[in-house]
Amino acid sequence: MAVGILDVDLCGPSIPRMLSMGRPDVHQCDSGWVPVYTDAQKSLALMSIGFLLEDPDEAVVWRGPKKTALIGQFVSDVAWGELDVLLVDTPPGTSDEHLAVLENLKKHRVDGAVLVTTPQAVSTGDVRREITFCKKTGVPILGIIENMSGFVCPHCSECSNIFSKGGGEELAKLTGSVFLGSVPLDPLLSGSIEEGKDFLQSFPNSATFSAISSISQTLLNSLQTA
Amino acid sequence: MAVGILDVDLCGPSIPRMLSMGRPDVHQCDSGWVPVYTDAQKSLALMSIGFLLEDPDEAVVWRGPKKTALIGQFVSDVAWGELDVLLVDTPPGTSDEHLAVLENLKKHRVDGAVLVTTPQAVSTGDVRREITFCKKTGVPILGIIENMSGFVCPHCSECSNIFSKGGGEELAKLTGSVFLGSVPLDPLLSGSIEEGKDFLQSFPNSATFSAISSISQTLLNSLQTA
Repeated sequence: MAVGILDVDLCGPSIPRMLSMGRPDVHQCDSGWVPVYTDAQKSLALMSIGFLLEDPDEAVVWRGPKKTALIGQFVSDVAWGELDVLLVDTPPGTSDEHLAVLENLKKHRVDGAVLVTTPQAVSTGDVRREITFCKKTGVPILGIIENMSGFVCPHCSECSNIFSKGGGEELAKLTGSVFLGSVPLDPLLSGSIEEGKDFLQSFPNSATFSAISSISQTLLNSLQTA
Repeated sequence: MAVGILDVDLCGPSIPRMLSMGRPDVHQCDSGWVPVYTDAQKSLALMSIGFLLEDPDEAVVWRGPKKTALIGQFVSDVAWGELDVLLVDTPPGTSDEHLAVLENLKKHRVDGAVLVTTPQAVSTGDVRREITFCKKTGVPILGIIENMSGFVCPHCSECSNIFSKGGGEELAKLTGSVFLGSVPLDPLLSGSIEEGKDFLQSFPNSATFSAISSISQTLLNSLQTA
């Protein structure tokens, strides 16, 4: 299965670090920029402004129109090849980046949006506004994921709901959306990202691994039956 | 001391909920919009698009120029009165909102920026770009705060560094900035926001209260000696 991830958070690109990709050069071919691949089998193709900046501390001080133009290039001038799925990672909000993605994907089929929230009301409030955005712009909602959902203390195994509890599931119910599942707060996951380790390979028996697998499977099934 | 908080996160305004303000009406007076006050003594004046939307789920689907215009109004058309300090809460990034704030505050003295990070590299990376933005635009950096800094389990009192450790302090050292302090992950704090309780009044003996007080005092001292 060929999957692409397009990071359209131009001022705060996190995909390169989240996937421990370092700072590879982006090459050009006849059909445009060659995406960065995570492995020799080219199973995951990535594009992010993080790969294009010479200095990782460079600030992208761009207003909307410049952001919109680069997102257009990311969709049409990257040699994505034959992808089964293109996942677009957006910053929070309902502004230039989100509109630019939709405009540039008009020619393609947009299966829908996956919305991620924490359990707290301050976060579900933001996602409610994003649901309104999806309805206004005709984007189907594939489902809601609750992130930072409870923390199991590695010392005593007791669970603390640091950011409240169940807000994502409740939001899904309230808005008639599919609840895709919860991902707990897990130092193994954040530690893997910090150290540049592949979490899924390193901790296949963890509860977080199961949660992520189950969410991915549900999402994939819904895409295949769509 | 008269303090104002201006929330310029137009697509994801969180100040109304973070301060448990509900949905008060915003009134007009001769000199513009009257800010929302948290108490009868008018000790804290607030303005946020969250107070202006009829429906809290309404999506603000605005491109940069419209955002820039409203931020201009928030600075010049709000009857802030005589403030000692105006704190502007921005969304993450280095784009329209940030440029709009600086343009509109040109006539006033901008003391500087307070940058908030979590300990993880993925977050300090974003803040490094914001430091570059401040240098480019001539905004002094008042200091760096580390948020989500360790979690003390309420069951066994052991500390877990869920999002790594010390990244904020290290960033301050690396960039020659003042390190203002760390705020731990605390379910009492997030729970207070969730339930609409005043955390500082409810938990004056907590470690988080001490951390927040110490940061505020350091910041205030640096403003008074500036």
